[in-house]
Amino acid sequence: MTEATKNTHQISVDELWELWPTLNDKERVEWFAQLDHTDAEDFFSSIPCEDQAAMIELMPEREQRHWMRTLAPDDTVDVLQIIEDEDTRSNLKGFLQSKARKEIDALMAYKEDEAGGLMSPRFARCRPDMTVDEAILYVRRQMREELETIYYVYVLDNQQHLLGIVSFEELFKSEDSKKISEIMDTEPTTVHEDMDQESVALLFAREDFFALPVVDSDNVMKGIITIDDIVDVVQDEATEDIQKMGGMSALDTDYLQSTFRELYTKRVGWLIILFCCTLLTTRVMDHYSDAMSKAIILCVFVPLIMASGGNTGSQATTLVTRAMALGEIRLRDVLRVLKRELVVSSGLGATLAVIGFIVILAYHFLGMLPDSVGFAPLAATIAVSVGVLVIYGSLVGSMLPFLLKLCHIDPASASAPFVTTILDASGIIIYFTIAKIFLASALS
Amino acid sequence: MTEATKNTHQISVDELWELWPTLNDKERVEWFAQLDHTDAEDFFSSIPCEDQAAMIELMPEREQRHWMRTLAPDDTVDVLQIIEDEDTRSNLKGFLQSKARKEIDALMAYKEDEAGGLMSPRFARCRPDMTVDEAILYVRRQMREELETIYYVYVLDNQQHLLGIVSFEELFKSEDSKKISEIMDTEPTTVHEDMDQESVALLFAREDFFALPVVDSDNVMKGIITIDDIVDVVQDEATEDIQKMGGMSALDTDYLQSTFRELYTKRVGWLIILFCCTLLTTRVMDHYSDAMSKAIILCVFVPLIMASGGNTGSQATTLVTRAMALGEIRLRDVLRVLKRELVVSSGLGATLAVIGFIVILAYHFLGMLPDSVGFAPLAATIAVSVGVLVIYGSLVGSMLPFLLKLCHIDPASASAPFVTTILDASGIIIYFTIAKIFLASALS
Repeated sequence: MTEATKNTHQISVDELWELWPTLNDKERVEWFAQLDHTDAEDFFSSIPCEDQAAMIELMPEREQRHWMRTLAPDDTVDVLQIIEDEDTRSNLKGFLQSKARKEIDALMAYKEDEAGGLMSPRFARCRPDMTVDEAILYVRRQMREELETIYYVYVLDNQQHLLGIVSFEELFKSEDSKKISEIMDTEPTTVHEDMDQESVALLFAREDFFALPVVDSDNVMKGIITIDDIVDVVQDEATEDIQKMGGMSALDTDYLQSTFRELYTKRVGWLIILFCCTLLTTRVMDHYSDAMSKAIILCVFVPLIMASGGNTGSQATTLVTRAMALGEIRLRDVLRVLKRELVVSSGLGATLAVIGFIVILAYHFLGMLPDSVGFAPLAATIAVSVGVLVIYGSLVGSMLPFLLKLCHIDPASASAPFVTTILDASGIIIYFTIAKIFLASALS
Repeated sequence: MTEATKNTHQISVDELWELWPTLNDKERVEWFAQLDHTDAEDFFSSIPCEDQAAMIELMPEREQRHWMRTLAPDDTVDVLQIIEDEDTRSNLKGFLQSKARKEIDALMAYKEDEAGGLMSPRFARCRPDMTVDEAILYVRRQMREELETIYYVYVLDNQQHLLGIVSFEELFKSEDSKKISEIMDTEPTTVHEDMDQESVALLFAREDFFALPVVDSDNVMKGIITIDDIVDVVQDEATEDIQKMGGMSALDTDYLQSTFRELYTKRVGWLIILFCCTLLTTRVMDHYSDAMSKAIILCVFVPLIMASGGNTGSQATTLVTRAMALGEIRLRDVLRVLKRELVVSSGLGATLAVIGFIVILAYHFLGMLPDSVGFAPLAATIAVSVGVLVIYGSLVGSMLPFLLKLCHIDPASASAPFVTTILDASGIIIYFTIAKIFLASALS
């Protein structure tokens, strides 16, 4: 029974969701208490564990006991890991039944982002020498003490070694008299307890499992990871990558839930880095100010040239980074990627070069070009620069994620803005070098 | 039995994966035939349905029958929907058992990206008046004709209306004698057959279901969607968004699997659009060439100013677009977002403005500034421009996804390059306008 059920005026889950970001922890507890019982369960299980922890700390003891016993083992661990105060933590643990407490202690050993941290220690088990109907009865008995999933039954020996897996489908299809050892899959896919959650997610994505057994190095069964937790992992990992690729650090919570302070700190870091990198560009520009003063028309096209490189670069980076995250591209594929980008970007470069040439041609006939520089050399400069920068951009953009991965930095840090910034300075050098070739007379 | 099993020299799945992109359809069939039986099953089920269709068309009849009967109903539908030739399609359908054919025909009615297209018509069912152990026996009998999942049993009346759901957990926990109607959940979450797959995925992500029932408008049960299919949907939707946000159209297959032609066509479109938009920038630059010729130092800072706006812009766009894709932000949140961006970007703008000022100060003392323009007005121009553009960039960047959504365009099209391009032209105008205020004397 929670406070909620004994409260007079009620609030709906949606209303509370609206208010949530605007409330401090104390207010959250108060408002939350006004949800009716079932709503409260749904709401509490759907808020991030940071919020759960903060609220539990402020709740009256009776509430604390209720929620500690309501949360699933893996969630309880997340909450306990957040709470700093040693005493509070042990108090909260005190509310757990001894069996649950043992499970929690076992799980606490794992990092949040490794397989062990995702896993539930409650799974259906049986022995290889049982008959099918013995196994069904045995599992039915285990049901009574909540199992995380009943989709598979795990066949263990007395030392808890994983001997095989029987899907319930299989179990139900087979005749009662068959031995489990006859119908079990003896080479099941397993996950090592230290495997990081991204790799676990890829496993689930590639083949369609409902649950995977987690084992230690001696193939002792530790627990199971169910696919419902994986959907969230996949979603979160993608969001994290997308935000990094947008040129910022990943947020810890929803955009609308996160504080102004967080939004600022997560964004300002990269902005400053990028700003400082761009300063290099200004130095480069400055270096060519003489050339520019002789032919202002050259500055006029600077944004166009830089954009051509930056856009293809960010395309290439995005493609490679995502493919890496999905495990489609590994370090050893670097040459295949290089080859593809070279071929494709040559095509892209040629296309844009032609368009660039046509544009200058148009400007020429519209009399929009200054007389100081002739049409031909300018057209050549623009067309060639665009073509070269598109190819250059794709190559740099596609190789950057490899470089980062090699340095054990998340390739997703190769954001579009980052690539563009890197390309800018070098792009300008390429541009003016080409210009000096074709416009030698005008610039001398 | 497939060709594979009767083949002399074998090839491993991994080897075939390496070769795959380099092979044409005919070669693919030949190489594929060299996989041993189980490998063949795994491999075939893991390649995209376009490839499955292309291969099946080229296979000998015996092979065709085998694969048509091996594929799950929902996959069969995908394959059949791809095959254009009417005769081939009806031939292939001919290989299906009549029951399966009925299922397929029912599924073919749905679009691939609707709930109906994801769903399997094979689910465990029972009647409300059965007892628990009757139900268990009844479901065990259904097992024998492959069910997609046995995690839930769906309680239907004679007109196939969905009355309730019993999880196997519940079914197994309860005593044999209890009636299903006593233990079933009578208000289950359901999915309408027309719901688009992105929304279905969000449902699975928000709450942890293993399967959801698909019903039509009269609450008649059509089938179930299992979470294992959803993981792929979530993964694919994210990849699609990421690629769009990288400034290109989404690829149909893996980066390494896709042809050069596809890579080119998917990328060139946006590049041309962006290129043409940037032409506007050159016109704007040209408009200020007079000012620039008077103070070349102004061009020198153009890349810096533009980058400041572009980078914050792409951050804001990325945040909002992703939050929209996750259903965290809806159109009606536009004002909340605007407020957040205004506050946060003011902070970011101030920060970068200060840094900008310090930089100019440094340049000044290092004697890197021309005498033509004084230190103070230039410092003011840069600092103010950077600050204003950061704020301007975040606002434009955060509002663009709303605008696109309003026009029923996928917000993910608001890619970093796109936003940057949009900001460039206007950014330059803002910059030179500010410059003309502070540098009036130098520019007159």
